[in-house]
Amino acid sequence: MPGEPGGGPRAASAGSGGPARRGRPGYDRQTLMAVCVDVFIRHGYDATSMGMLAKHLGISKSAIYHHVDSKEAILEQALDDALGALEAAFDAVEAGGGSAGERVEAAVRGTLQALADHMPQVTLLLRLRGNSDVELRAMERRRTITRRLGALLEAGQAEGTVRDDVTPRNLARLTLGMINSIVDWFRPDGPHTVQDMVHSVTGVVLRGVRG
Amino acid sequence: MPGEPGGGPRAASAGSGGPARRGRPGYDRQTLMAVCVDVFIRHGYDATSMGMLAKHLGISKSAIYHHVDSKEAILEQALDDALGALEAAFDAVEAGGGSAGERVEAAVRGTLQALADHMPQVTLLLRLRGNSDVELRAMERRRTITRRLGALLEAGQAEGTVRDDVTPRNLARLTLGMINSIVDWFRPDGPHTVQDMVHSVTGVVLRGVRG
Repeated sequence: MPGEPGGGPRAASAGSGGPARRGRPGYDRQTLMAVCVDVFIRHGYDATSMGMLAKHLGISKSAIYHHVDSKEAILEQALDDALGALEAAFDAVEAGGGSAGERVEAAVRGTLQALADHMPQVTLLLRLRGNSDVELRAMERRRTITRRLGALLEAGQAEGTVRDDVTPRNLARLTLGMINSIVDWFRPDGPHTVQDMVHSVTGVVLRGVRG
Repeated sequence: MPGEPGGGPRAASAGSGGPARRGRPGYDRQTLMAVCVDVFIRHGYDATSMGMLAKHLGISKSAIYHHVDSKEAILEQALDDALGALEAAFDAVEAGGGSAGERVEAAVRGTLQALADHMPQVTLLLRLRGNSDVELRAMERRRTITRRLGALLEAGQAEGTVRDDVTPRNLARLTLGMINSIVDWFRPDGPHTVQDMVHSVTGVVLRGVRG
């Protein structure tokens, strides 16, 4: 297994259930969550067991339970991080002023920024299959975001700044398809800054949807 | 080996191995593959066992082995169907004439048509994580397709018909991100025909990348 970050690697063998380590330096909750999300992405959420998470973290299963209640609680938190950031971006756009065209642009930029800030969590979100209530609720929140973008695009169509030969719903889906693709290829530590990426992708998306 | 092909749905219980039924009508290989791909999509390839496939098909595991060597062989065939169709689309574009801009348009149309024709197989392809040699080889073929689109876009940049403020590689990734999104929302039996969808999506993609 490739090297895992963070605290006491392999201090306890997977599944052995070592003693609780309150106060012992090790993973904070955020780092532990990040490692777990990474394992979910590499192996698939359904195929990942708490034993696998313990092995990757190099701590016991009971040490994980010190931080989180269950594997599903980790997934739920990660999905909420991603969806919360996306919803906040749309809240800001809808609360702000400007023409419909300007709000579409702000929504595209805000979505790209939220994705860049939460790439692992968004990657998980995009791969959900709806196998549990947690997944189904997250998928419904994701559909609501698509509808909010669709409403902005529809206002742009009424204004004449967004093309009207495609339904707002399908235009929102296409736009988000292009935007979401960045989680597969953009690397914040790569040659391009987040700011450059947001600028470039916004340019391509907006020209595509322009009326 | 007990249990032979073909038994009609639920004729033999999963894994129990009923009597041989040569000559009795049952699944042809293509239908069996389609059901298996559907189960992979719903439950995830890694989380799907041959027992689960047998249960969904309503035949014994040994009846499945009459058609295919392994679960991985089913995946490999499905991925090859998807990748073969995409590669054929690019072969046709590269063998054909026209300006770079026309070839970009033909590649976008051809990719959309290949996706519409092989939606379940492409859905599997897009969800690969690279957990086996079969998956890694398919992912490499997918990257080659992205590079081929990148080369067409680069020729379009040289010609002045494709925007040059984004690298051809990233433009290819964004374009394919938008195109690939159709597997999540386009339904060939829905209100829009494949022809309508190809026309609309090509319009949005091309305007986005235009120079």
